[in-house]
Order: sequence, then structure tokens, then C-alpha cells
Amino acid sequence: MKASTASASAWDRVWLGANLTTMPGLPAYNDRHGPNELGEVRDAALAIKDGRIAWIGTRQQLDTLQWSAATVTLAEGLWITPGLVECHTHLVYAGDRSNEFAARLRGATYEEISRAGGGIVATMKATRAASEDQLLDQSLPRALALAAEGVTTLEIKSGYGLDLDNELKMLRVAQRIGEITGLTVVKTFLGAHALPPEFAGRQEDYVRHVCDEMLPAVATTKLADAVDVFCERIAFTQEQTRRIFARARELGLPARLHADQLSDGNGGELAADAGALSADHLEHTSEQSLQRMTERGVVAGLLPGAFYYLRETKLPPIERLRELNIPMAVSTDCNPGTSPIASLLTAMNMACVIFRLTAAETLRGVTINAAKALGLANNRGTLEVGARADLAIWRLRHPEQLCAEVGVHRPVEIVRTPR
Amino acid sequence: MKASTASASAWDRVWLGANLTTMPGLPAYNDRHGPNELGEVRDAALAIKDGRIAWIGTRQQLDTLQWSAATVTLAEGLWITPGLVECHTHLVYAGDRSNEFAARLRGATYEEISRAGGGIVATMKATRAASEDQLLDQSLPRALALAAEGVTTLEIKSGYGLDLDNELKMLRVAQRIGEITGLTVVKTFLGAHALPPEFAGRQEDYVRHVCDEMLPAVATTKLADAVDVFCERIAFTQEQTRRIFARARELGLPARLHADQLSDGNGGELAADAGALSADHLEHTSEQSLQRMTERGVVAGLLPGAFYYLRETKLPPIERLRELNIPMAVSTDCNPGTSPIASLLTAMNMACVIFRLTAAETLRGVTINAAKALGLANNRGTLEVGARADLAIWRLRHPEQLCAEVGVHRPVEIVRTPR
Ligand SMILES: [Zn+2]
Ligand SMILES: [Zn+2]
Repeated sequence: MKASTASASAWDRVWLGANLTTMPGLPAYNDRHGPNELGEVRDAALAIKDGRIAWIGTRQQLDTLQWSAATVTLAEGLWITPGLVECHTHLVYAGDRSNEFAARLRGATYEEISRAGGGIVATMKATRAASEDQLLDQSLPRALALAAEGVTTLEIKSGYGLDLDNELKMLRVAQRIGEITGLTVVKTFLGAHALPPEFAGRQEDYVRHVCDEMLPAVATTKLADAVDVFCERIAFTQEQTRRIFARARELGLPARLHADQLSDGNGGELAADAGALSADHLEHTSEQSLQRMTERGVVAGLLPGAFYYLRETKLPPIERLRELNIPMAVSTDCNPGTSPIASLLTAMNMACVIFRLTAAETLRGVTINAAKALGLANNRGTLEVGARADLAIWRLRHPEQLCAEVGVHRPVEIVRTPR
Repeated sequence: MKASTASASAWDRVWLGANLTTMPGLPAYNDRHGPNELGEVRDAALAIKDGRIAWIGTRQQLDTLQWSAATVTLAEGLWITPGLVECHTHLVYAGDRSNEFAARLRGATYEEISRAGGGIVATMKATRAASEDQLLDQSLPRALALAAEGVTTLEIKSGYGLDLDNELKMLRVAQRIGEITGLTVVKTFLGAHALPPEFAGRQEDYVRHVCDEMLPAVATTKLADAVDVFCERIAFTQEQTRRIFARARELGLPARLHADQLSDGNGGELAADAGALSADHLEHTSEQSLQRMTERGVVAGLLPGAFYYLRETKLPPIERLRELNIPMAVSTDCNPGTSPIASLLTAMNMACVIFRLTAAETLRGVTINAAKALGLANNRGTLEVGARADLAIWRLRHPEQLCAEVGVHRPVEIVRTPR
């Protein structure tokens, strides 16, 4: 907690008497053993000015200062958390895959569905067939559902276009979602999500196409903030992933990775070697990969929704992540097939119940650590002076209830500062 | 589907062009093999008058009739389902049990928490300490969360008062929730939920107190529609349950049962012998109990939320329930400890993903079969002429999406007819 000395300068707004979870961003913070890992401040005051947090401290500290504010809100009994950060979604898509849901209930595996022409390629067809406006119409409700839960920063991946025009269409829709909702939308190019049918049997050609045609065009449009690859035996190889990341680096685009979800593909190591922001899924990640992630400060993106939908049994190595102080982020992985969950609060509950994260770890996983996964730490996902004024304000006895109880909690107020 | 012949009499409202899931209530309906188990009618018309469904058919059929209506809604592309029926909740309570949630994440079992003074008795203390208004304030958001999802009929149990005054206070709060929200609230007396501390070591005395003092008083006030018992080795014995049900029958109150959740206690058989409306949980129910439930037409109440929170591994005997044509209802079991889920849509998703119900079985489980579990079949949970005009209207490609996708679907309109 930083209690900066305030001049008598006027703030835009101040909240008095709220409790805060400031989510301190200590560099090698151990989520379990910190004495106050949420950075709780009781009976606090928080002031904002020009879209930034201008002052934080206890109300008692504030009483010793001279201040004024255009709006003063008495917030006793409320909790203020950073606006939630959703760091891994595929929520721009057309159509639905309820038929696959039924097939999976009858026992079909993800790989079987994928090999039978379902999965990503089924959504690709619907997404290509949709106009940009239709795609926006179908995707916007999912973003609004997340926003209503207090999400203020939202990552959205492309990856259902699988050709340049349709990938750019998806990224434009993601951008428009940000403009319409006021959410900070972080856009990730995922051209290497699956092999499009027109490249059937020519995976190497498609990877060359991604590197030589799509990536440069995406970089030129500035429609993407990062590049992601689905590295998996049903998707792209390690060697292909390395090539795509190398090209992305040349173009100045940071990497993130779908790593080791269904099998160990050295995903963690690969992400570390590429200096990736995050490696996500990690159910099958090896010890060697974890060591490399620690060295390079790669965030572990945990996606319990896909684990739940696919009825997986091999948990990510949570205990090792703790021991190695690897920051854990938590996300919905919102997508039409393996995690059709447009609710970060539900994913938070699953992180606790299924992955056995503590509520505090989970709350850090959707604030400070999710911001780290997006390269936005110090600016989002934390309450500190100078950070963006993205706030979620809740009527709770304690924010742990956000993890323990499903379906009933919504912020009473949300403050958003689009970038 | 009944297409009654309409006179030229005026309806209050008619929807044109919607798709319907009428949820037919066939007496020995096999959910899996019915050719149209949801009773789908495409491009339909539905009319209501005086709080009842007045006409149902295809739009083509309607075109051959003379009719008028005060309000005509063009509903092309929308789906109309019966208002959802939530048939098993404990949502009236004070306080929260996030601390137990944390203990369970560290490995404590439900029985350990219960024996350590947590669990039901912890909520009892908070509930007794709350005034009736405070209890209403804390409980109402949970009912409103369910209502926002399309629930129009809601069962609420007492069972955190555990003395007459506080049990009646809970039932009055349940009644006020119905009055405030317009939901049809079905109230169940669950005095035999746990042993209150003042009867420690005197379980028989408490059961006598329930039978001789509490039940007659509850019947006199007419604040309960049914009587429930938690029959389990950590709660009440089979013999005690039989006595309570016998007394309830004398007082004209139907039975329902918490049966075989943590161990086989002949719960299904016991429920059948008492002519109970439903036996709920059933994870450990024996074949003999299932046979008896079939004979007596007891509804199986499936509660995947508690299974999920407690990380149980023994599934209810779903395949046998299908084979025996036992109607399956699905519910949240919304309660502060083992299933703090105020979202029927989430419970529906869990019924599919965790219990492997089909989407159609689950949709019947929250409509016609949940209405059966409350003794309200033919009147709620089904779209047929003469049934109450309780409708949920959705913008969906198909209602199966309600099961497959989490967090994004809400009715675009809800029609409620309080009784
Ligand atoms: Zn993903
Ligand atoms: Zn219950």
C-alpha cells in the first residue's frame, strides 16, 4: 500500500470507508505465505483523477490531509477490487457447438471430435460465413456478460478465420467490442490455431503462410497485441511453434502459448525460450518446462473450464507452480467447444473447487497475475497510485465469497478506463 | 401438443412464430427414447388468458381460426420454454460459510466440518441471530438471481432455525420472497435438518419435539407445503425419518427426502413408503430403493452442485433411473455450505457435464419433472392448455444451448403467474 502525500489538488472522485484488496505485485510473491496476499486495507479511502488512481490509504490517513473531490462516495461496507482481468478468451465466433457437447456427453473425446471435422474447423466455417456485423452481434453478448461481472480488461484471440481476411475480421470485431463496451480489449493473433481445410495435408505450407503472409499483414494493421499458437499433437508442432514465434519477435509482437493441454509438448520451455508472456493450460507440463518458466518469468495461465468440460483427470502441477513462485492467472478460456463459459466468476469457482487454488490465489489470478499475463502489470489488476482507475465495487462480507458462491454476486458499480 | 379449437373469444396476449418446448408430461416417459421428448413445436403460436395458457398450436393452425388478443407479439426466432422450476433449495439463510469452503479446499470432509461445529449449525447460529427483515435482505438476492434466469417456481426449505420460532421465521421469509418477487414459492419444513445444540445428546427428544410441537404448529400456520428430513448417518436415522413422515401424513403434509447422499440409508425405499414426492441426492441409493421408487412414482431429485462442491466420486445411478423410467429433476440445492449456487443454469450444465444427463433430460429436469417433484405437474413446468402461464422466452438457436453454455443466456422476457 502506498499512501502518497496528497497536495490540496482536486480529485475527480473519492470513495470513503470501503475495504480494498490492492493486489500488490511483489516480484517473487508467494501466494500462500504472504501475510496479506490480497493487500487488504480496511476502512480505506481511494481517489481517482484523470483515469488514474491518485491516492490510496486508510480513512484515518486521509483525515490528516487537505483534499477535495468532485464526487465523494460513502462506501462503508463495500469492497473495492481492481477491475477483473480476463486474460484468455476465444469469445469472437459465430454459431454454437451444442451438437459436440452432446457427442462428448456420449463419450467422444476432444481429439475424436476434432479429427471428425468438428471442433475448431466447425466454428471456422460459421465464422467465415458471418459478416463482420453478424460476428459482432453474436460475440458481443459474451463480452457484455463478462463485463457485468466486473471484468474491465479482456483478452480476445483470433483463430477461427484461418485465412488472412477472416483473421483480420475477427480482430476488427474484437477491437469494436472494446470501443462499444468501454472494456480494455487486448487482441491476440492465433492464426496457428488449427489447419484450415484448404491446406489439408500441407501443414508446413500453412505455417509458411502464417509466417510470410499473415503475420506481417497483422503487424502492419496493428490489430494484434500478441501472437499465440496452439502447440499440440492435434495442432502445431514444437518446431513450427518456434518458427512462428521467431517471426513474431522480428515483427515486435510478444508471444503467448497454448501449452501442454492434452499431452506434454515441452510447451512451458518453448514459451520460456520465446520470452512469452504466458503459457496456458499446462496440465501435462514437465518439471523441466516449469524450471524454464521460472527463470524467464512466464505466467502460468490456468483454465479450469476446459478441464471441467473435457472431464480431464490430470491436474496442472499447482503445487510445483506454488513452490517455484510462478505467477498463476485464472481465466475462462471462453470458446464454443471446450469451455463455453462466459463467466469469469464461474471459472474462479472452478479454479478453487477443481484445481484446489485458494480463494486468495484465485483472486490474484484474475487481477495482478492476469495483468502480468497480458503485459499490463503495474497498470491493471492492481490498486496502486498511478495505475488505471479500473475498479469493481462489491457488496460482500469478504471477496473470498466471489470464489465460494456461484451465481449471486455482481458488482454494485464498475469504473472503467479504456486505454 | 393440444391444439384446442378456439372460439373467437379475446386472449390477453399471443406470441406468433416462436418455437416451443412444451415438455409433455407422459406418465411413463422415457427421456432418452422419446421421438420428441421436449415436445418441440416450430413456428408456433401460444395464447394466454387470465393467467392460463389458452391456446397452443402451429401458426398455420392458428391461421384457420378466428381470434383476437390485447397484445400480439411477433416472436420469430425466439424459443418459449415453461418457466423454470427450481425444486430444491435452502436459500433462506444468514451469513456465509466461505471459511468452510477454504477448509474443504485444504481437504476437510463434509462430515468432519459438520462434527467440528461447522456446517448446518454454523448457519443456524447466524440465522437465529438475524431478524426476519435481515434474513429477508440476505436471502432475497439469491431468489432474484434465480428469477433472472427464468425460474418462475421456487422451492425453499426451512432447516436453519431448528426451533419453532426460527423455523417459522424462515418460512415467513420464504413466503415474503414469493410476495415480493412474484415467484411461486413452495415452502418445505425441514426441522429435521440437524440436531440443534440445545438438544445435544438428546436426538430422540428432538425428534419427539419435531413431531409433537413443531409439526402441528407448522401445519396450523399453513406456512409449509411439505415436510423434508435429512436422513443420513450425520443427521437423522431411518426410524426417526419414518416417524416424522407418519406425523406429517396425519397433518396432511406430503413428504420429500434428503436420501442416500453420503451413504446408503434406504432413502429411496423410505421415501417410497411415505409416498414422498421426491427423493433427492441418491448418490448411494440401492437397487431395492430404486425399484420401490418406480412402484410409487417418486421423482429422483439430482443435485450436481453438492456433488461438485464436495468432490464426490460416486455418481447417482443415472442409467438405472433411465431404465426404470424414474422421472429425474435437476436442482441447485442452493445452500451456504455444500452448494452455494444461486444459478439453475449452472446446475443444469453440471447435470450434463458431471452426471452425463442429456440436455433434453436436463431441460425436462427443470420443467415438467421438477414440477412433478413439487406436486405441481399439469400446472407448472409444461406448456399445455390450462396450465399456468409461466413462460421463459429466450433468444437461442436451440434450448440445448442453455445446458451447453454457461454465463451468457438470460430470458429476454419472463411471464409469471403467482398462485
Ligand atoms: Zn484457449
Ligand atoms: Zn438439500
